[in-house]
Amino acid sequence: MAALARVGVLGAGRRLWKLHVRLSAGLQGCGLRRGYIVGSAERSPTFGLLFDIDGVLVRGHRVIPAALEAFSKLVNSQGQLRVPVVFVTNAGNILQHNKAQELSALLGCKVDPDQVILSHSPMKLFLQYHNKQMLVSGQGPLVENARALGFQNVVTVDELRIAFPELDMVDLQRRPKSMVIRTHLRNDFPVIEGVILLGEPVRWETNLQLIMDVLLSNGNPGTGLATAPYPHLPVLASNMDLLWMAEAKMPRFGHGAFLLCLETIYRKVTGNELRYEGLMGKPSILTYQYAEDVIRQQAERRGWATPIRKLYAIGDNPMSDVYGANLFHQYLQTANLGEEGQQTGGQQKQRSSATQSCASILVCTGIYSSQDPGSQVPTPRREVLPFHGHRDFGFSPELLEASHIVHDVNEAVQLVFHQEGWA
Amino acid sequence: MAALARVGVLGAGRRLWKLHVRLSAGLQGCGLRRGYIVGSAERSPTFGLLFDIDGVLVRGHRVIPAALEAFSKLVNSQGQLRVPVVFVTNAGNILQHNKAQELSALLGCKVDPDQVILSHSPMKLFLQYHNKQMLVSGQGPLVENARALGFQNVVTVDELRIAFPELDMVDLQRRPKSMVIRTHLRNDFPVIEGVILLGEPVRWETNLQLIMDVLLSNGNPGTGLATAPYPHLPVLASNMDLLWMAEAKMPRFGHGAFLLCLETIYRKVTGNELRYEGLMGKPSILTYQYAEDVIRQQAERRGWATPIRKLYAIGDNPMSDVYGANLFHQYLQTANLGEEGQQTGGQQKQRSSATQSCASILVCTGIYSSQDPGSQVPTPRREVLPFHGHRDFGFSPELLEASHIVHDVNEAVQLVFHQEGWA
Repeated sequence: MAALARVGVLGAGRRLWKLHVRLSAGLQGCGLRRGYIVGSAERSPTFGLLFDIDGVLVRGHRVIPAALEAFSKLVNSQGQLRVPVVFVTNAGNILQHNKAQELSALLGCKVDPDQVILSHSPMKLFLQYHNKQMLVSGQGPLVENARALGFQNVVTVDELRIAFPELDMVDLQRRPKSMVIRTHLRNDFPVIEGVILLGEPVRWETNLQLIMDVLLSNGNPGTGLATAPYPHLPVLASNMDLLWMAEAKMPRFGHGAFLLCLETIYRKVTGNELRYEGLMGKPSILTYQYAEDVIRQQAERRGWATPIRKLYAIGDNPMSDVYGANLFHQYLQTANLGEEGQQTGGQQKQRSSATQSCASILVCTGIYSSQDPGSQVPTPRREVLPFHGHRDFGFSPELLEASHIVHDVNEAVQLVFHQEGWA
Repeated sequence: MAALARVGVLGAGRRLWKLHVRLSAGLQGCGLRRGYIVGSAERSPTFGLLFDIDGVLVRGHRVIPAALEAFSKLVNSQGQLRVPVVFVTNAGNILQHNKAQELSALLGCKVDPDQVILSHSPMKLFLQYHNKQMLVSGQGPLVENARALGFQNVVTVDELRIAFPELDMVDLQRRPKSMVIRTHLRNDFPVIEGVILLGEPVRWETNLQLIMDVLLSNGNPGTGLATAPYPHLPVLASNMDLLWMAEAKMPRFGHGAFLLCLETIYRKVTGNELRYEGLMGKPSILTYQYAEDVIRQQAERRGWATPIRKLYAIGDNPMSDVYGANLFHQYLQTANLGEEGQQTGGQQKQRSSATQSCASILVCTGIYSSQDPGSQVPTPRREVLPFHGHRDFGFSPELLEASHIVHDVNEAVQLVFHQEGWA
């Protein structure tokens, strides 16, 4: 952490990346920029970039113009990336290759599906559940996503609802008109051995109720047990973002809001805490380890001989992007000292990389857009700000402090190039 | 409370209403029962009955057979009720007159709409909001219900969603395809001055998000305020039941589960507590005061001269029916001592009745069905049982202790008749 000049996300004394931006603004004409890129294209990079997507590169349907500027700096004259890049999103209700296509179109450069890390991508590492019968919650290409992650036996909440129609009673219009039990569906229904929560579902009342039924019945939701089993069936979840930024002026609920409801209902009904066997997506260390692996492989494929020693994580959400990058940086410091790092929400993993640090760069084009970092508006005292992170990540205020705060992703890339002597 | 022999709902030493049931079982032939009813039909009752519906009279679509037995005792040879009766349900997504028709058909005796008290019925007393612009959440005949309660200016969550499509982003299929703002809808949309939560809505994610948007924007959900106003706009809510019993073997989520999600999200996002201007439905005292009024009016209309001195509340849910009846009993004791009672979730009201006590009778045909009161199965220690009541009602374990536990509503009516010397 000592190598990084940390500045308060929420404090008053922010070191801004204004000076360099002003100095380099004159170089941003197309011809000059191209020359500048080609001039340093030969060098093997010793750093990699982690880009958040929503609020950094796009907002809702629209690309943020600064993202186009940034990527024009990142590609060489052959249209290839000059440094290893991954896109680390907490979205989960999409397919990796669709997101890659979408980014390619928006950014005007080829994005490979392997470069896209979704919130649930690290579930590939949870081999012990890949053969189990898992209930999957989310929306969109749910089953396709679960299968791509390695889960071979999945049932959806909708399939469960069809087999056990008496469980889903909130919507008066959807309530079964008669209680004729479809015995064949019910008898053939497999005993559920675990739950995977890939992203925010539709009709939260149905998903909350049926997931609870599965947990309270130990995977046999047609039965009623006298006491709920505890510990409950394993639950893997991804994307704990409480809020995210779309077109609306106020932030929107993310999967973290759904998880919060599930955790609260579980505690209220049973008196016990809901426990996750795995909790991934930013700010989980597991996600950053996964990203680090992908970056290393990318560098190897490109034949870059020098090891990647430094990561820069660019995001708009203090609670996921900044907190996660800082948590990973903290982990790297411990791991590089030869100690076994404390990992949250994932599995232990042997260190095999040369990465020494991870810097967090906060942009102001997304959820952290309400206050311009250069403004003189007094910020509220930290102690009165609510904690928007996940329950299982406690609250270490120092991890909310970004290494750098910049206006947008273009400034972020300029900052990194400057730091790395590429400017 | 001294007049009632309270027994533990959850403790081991339960006094059961078995002896009388066994003694009277021989009299239950139709002819004998009819004679028994006619024999005491002349007397003016000094007591009234409050019946819960779900889990007491019906379960899902089916009438509970004991309810037919009970009502055959309660009507005289002219088909008229022999004592004042109200049906006090925590349901709210229905119309009073439809529920009355449904009960009439199921019980085989005429039930008047005035006898049906829905969870939101006491909202009629909140005159100060009847002229305000209120956002209404729930399902079914929402607007009809709100108007019947006296609210003259209501908008629904769906109307809000149509005017501000960018607010509802969870369902990928329903997201607006383009962000063309329907200016006329938006400009004409009234500033919201309060929120009424009548019952569990459909698509909790949409309702949670849009209600939050209204509270955080002080009623202008198209705008984004730098800080959320606190205290927030007034919120009136009815039906705080966490769980209720339908056909499924395990209990189903009630509106209390939705309120729990809303309270939790509000606290997580803002750091402050969501506060209710009014919280009604059982176990709120306001609902019992309302029921008491209806019972007194019913007795007056029937020309029964003797005042109603005692109420019996028959229900299946310890946390709403038992807790509420006991809370009201406690209030009556205080009020009758000339002190001003502490009221929860409602307005102060002048005492004008002769009611001296309210006894709670718990039946085992609904949510409290899992343990037969006569069984020898050891019950868990009380301190490990989770609290299923609402946050605002704290937890007074003694209020969970029913005056009487009986098997079903027929036994409950037999018990009351015995207590009142009507047997």
